[in-house]
Amino acid sequence: MKFKVKDVDITTGGILVAILNKKDATMLDLNTGDRIRITRGSKSTVAVMDVSGSDKIVKRGEIGLMHEALENIGCRSRSVVNVSLEVKPRSVAYIKEKLKGNKLDEEKLRTIIQDIVDNKLTSIEITYFVAAGYTNGFDMDETVALTRAMINTGKILKIDCYPIVDKHCIGGVSGNRTTMIVVPILVAAGYCMPKTSSRSITSPAGTADTMEVLCGVGLDMDQMKKVVEKVGGCMTWGGAVNLAPADDKIITVEHPLSVDAEGQLLASILAKKGTVSATHVLIDIPVGHGAKIERVAKAKHLRKLFMRVGKKIGMKIKVMITDGSQPIGNGIGPALEARDVLWVLGNNPSAPQDLKQKSLLLAAEVMRSYPLKGWKSRHGYRHAKQLLESGRAMEVMQAIIAAQGPKVTDPKRIRLGKLKKDYKAPADGKVSVIENRLVSRAAKIAGAPFDKGAGMYLHHHVGDKVKKGEVLFTIYAENRKKFSYAKDFLKEFKPYVLK
Amino acid sequence: MKFKVKDVDITTGGILVAILNKKDATMLDLNTGDRIRITRGSKSTVAVMDVSGSDKIVKRGEIGLMHEALENIGCRSRSVVNVSLEVKPRSVAYIKEKLKGNKLDEEKLRTIIQDIVDNKLTSIEITYFVAAGYTNGFDMDETVALTRAMINTGKILKIDCYPIVDKHCIGGVSGNRTTMIVVPILVAAGYCMPKTSSRSITSPAGTADTMEVLCGVGLDMDQMKKVVEKVGGCMTWGGAVNLAPADDKIITVEHPLSVDAEGQLLASILAKKGTVSATHVLIDIPVGHGAKIERVAKAKHLRKLFMRVGKKIGMKIKVMITDGSQPIGNGIGPALEARDVLWVLGNNPSAPQDLKQKSLLLAAEVMRSYPLKGWKSRHGYRHAKQLLESGRAMEVMQAIIAAQGPKVTDPKRIRLGKLKKDYKAPADGKVSVIENRLVSRAAKIAGAPFDKGAGMYLHHHVGDKVKKGEVLFTIYAENRKKFSYAKDFLKEFKPYVLK
Repeated sequence: MKFKVKDVDITTGGILVAILNKKDATMLDLNTGDRIRITRGSKSTVAVMDVSGSDKIVKRGEIGLMHEALENIGCRSRSVVNVSLEVKPRSVAYIKEKLKGNKLDEEKLRTIIQDIVDNKLTSIEITYFVAAGYTNGFDMDETVALTRAMINTGKILKIDCYPIVDKHCIGGVSGNRTTMIVVPILVAAGYCMPKTSSRSITSPAGTADTMEVLCGVGLDMDQMKKVVEKVGGCMTWGGAVNLAPADDKIITVEHPLSVDAEGQLLASILAKKGTVSATHVLIDIPVGHGAKIERVAKAKHLRKLFMRVGKKIGMKIKVMITDGSQPIGNGIGPALEARDVLWVLGNNPSAPQDLKQKSLLLAAEVMRSYPLKGWKSRHGYRHAKQLLESGRAMEVMQAIIAAQGPKVTDPKRIRLGKLKKDYKAPADGKVSVIENRLVSRAAKIAGAPFDKGAGMYLHHHVGDKVKKGEVLFTIYAENRKKFSYAKDFLKEFKPYVLK
Repeated sequence: MKFKVKDVDITTGGILVAILNKKDATMLDLNTGDRIRITRGSKSTVAVMDVSGSDKIVKRGEIGLMHEALENIGCRSRSVVNVSLEVKPRSVAYIKEKLKGNKLDEEKLRTIIQDIVDNKLTSIEITYFVAAGYTNGFDMDETVALTRAMINTGKILKIDCYPIVDKHCIGGVSGNRTTMIVVPILVAAGYCMPKTSSRSITSPAGTADTMEVLCGVGLDMDQMKKVVEKVGGCMTWGGAVNLAPADDKIITVEHPLSVDAEGQLLASILAKKGTVSATHVLIDIPVGHGAKIERVAKAKHLRKLFMRVGKKIGMKIKVMITDGSQPIGNGIGPALEARDVLWVLGNNPSAPQDLKQKSLLLAAEVMRSYPLKGWKSRHGYRHAKQLLESGRAMEVMQAIIAAQGPKVTDPKRIRLGKLKKDYKAPADGKVSVIENRLVSRAAKIAGAPFDKGAGMYLHHHVGDKVKKGEVLFTIYAENRKKFSYAKDFLKEFKPYVLK
């Protein structure tokens, strides 16, 4: 059947969409979500059909196509194209199998993930896949297959060194910017660490946001490889490298219901490690009220799963369960956290000791678990401390910053929000609780992570004795309105509990 | 945060969509699928957010809105609106509960269905609901609650009579146009039957498509009520009355994976009966190869469920399990089926006897099961036959046609496709199989149900002895191209098997 093309100015970023008038769709027995093949001469493309009820957008005899579709078939508005029904990809049947509760083999999972990457599935079809994984679960074989599929459907960083170390934190704890200290220590020790990190998803700052205060983080795969080959490590934004591209599309449909199947979570994390060819991985699972994982039993269960999947995909994995009951470090927000990191690396007296200690423990764990040739593994902690306190880690950090496109290297020159307000202890007491969620919320309302200088600075941690009138924390903002919103929030909610 | 409105020319027909530039969305920490409240002066509306990666469509500082959204807040292109984050409706949390395997109470299911009707849920959220129902199932309480919710979230036809009878066929059998014979018989007997039917979904003709050959079927609720009050019954298209509006939206997301949870199926069918205030219902479940239900055990299971749900919602339900192994009637396609119906009602010698017999059995079952005051219920079949053969049923049919907007009443004046071809028996033999699916497919390829005169006429049924060269079936088409496609199809696939 022939249709006249109308250029419609929308971009979905996913599967191509073609719009037909409702009457034409009814006549052709086509429904929303059906696939059609659009052909012009020797060129053709597949799009998923949407229906326009109004003649204003797409009249009878017209087909509304987006720019990408027009490019694919090399035509423009008013060209005439042929439309025919196209069969669904096989992956749709596999998704239905999973929905019915059947187990999927590696080939089927690979096909689904490949079709997600290739924009062959609609968001409704991907949603069925996520829902099926959430309700019916993925077993060990499926999780392994999913991980492999996510690795192999994206680009893979190839670097000629061994071991290639990576780390990951499950998250939910404010501050906790250990990656930016652990990587310099381990690179100084001789490990290769091509580290990619995410930007903030729900927190006031991700490692990528914080690193961006100091240098560029938008490296592509080639640039990343060059930096790692030169310095031994890097710290860059995973989004720019497009690792495991299926993952982002899955996360988009997980978001509305915040569903996150366990097997999906594991595959998602380990796929990102696999795409940088990591051979040895440390997973940090902070546990505590307000952290992503709130119970030790759950953390132990995840640890077991991580180790088992790691074994099957040939990746050495070590899992540390850490204290996630309160923020780690003093700064919350990109600039404040970056300053904490530089203070620790520079052995500044203002450096938060909890952040330093946790970073040393993580680095030491890697050094103990995966000792380099000729090392005595039991000296991990002492070795890590020596690399940090001698300034060797700071030298590596400076080299990474220089290689990635330097902005700031001196903590004194990091720009904080000009608007600030201190919050003082109303009475003498002891800090008994600092609520991760309220700290995070207040810092975000103040503007973090988009306003880099916004956030919160914690002057005290749990267990500290404070006197009446002593400053507990300071709020920073760049924008007057957000500053006032944050103050309103802090009138109602108190992140510190004194006893 | 303020944005300048850009009028974007798309209509989704569902939840309102607002498009922000990707950079603005990132800055505001908003993701695709998040809800935002758009305010201008005292007016405001809620939309779900989509992100434009390209500045061509929506620039930074702009918000792309559709016409409906512009109308809701009374503004036009270049107006300035305020945008803030809006919380998700509670129904999203309930859907997640169901996805986790929890049972939902009546109040929660009602909230979900109401939000679907009110366009408050995105297609991804509705998909999670359908997936959850499919994998975790709905139990009896949930099915009943779902049915009630679907009835009460739409308009309800109120007619002052008792009993109000309805019938439904689960489908999958070609031809089988019994409704158009059963309704006139029962109305002639004194029952009230405000019958709504669907158009074809996957078949060559629905009852609405076939009735449309004879008269108008696009009656709204008021018109429908008037016809029923005048004649005692009607036969019209359910889509025009917008009964149980949640159902269509659920079907849209079920379509891509052809998922259809049992509880959902029951609720969907019974809700449509409930919205016409039906008190007594007959369900026909044809069973056989190629029908929707292929095994008797499954039909019996459904029968039990129908009776149980009926009891709980106070609806008398009778289920008949019938033979669905071959097409019923001779005509396949709207015009050919309409001619069969008029032949049966007019006692024409060409009338297909199988269609007549099945219609009489169904009508008799209603008369036996739900006898009117003063009747002897055991005379159902004799009574039905008398009403049909005396011409009383035909009089009622003519009255319904006249009341709905008559087109054709004489079977000789029904226009069939001008292009036709006979298919003859290649040898002497006995018809052992007629494949429902191939008959349906060929009739659709020939143009049914959109070309009303297209389809297939079956000259013989299973069990008939045929001689070599005798016509088995004839294919009809209105369009030369479709005619040739149908002939190509019938070169490859043979709907008749002779033995």
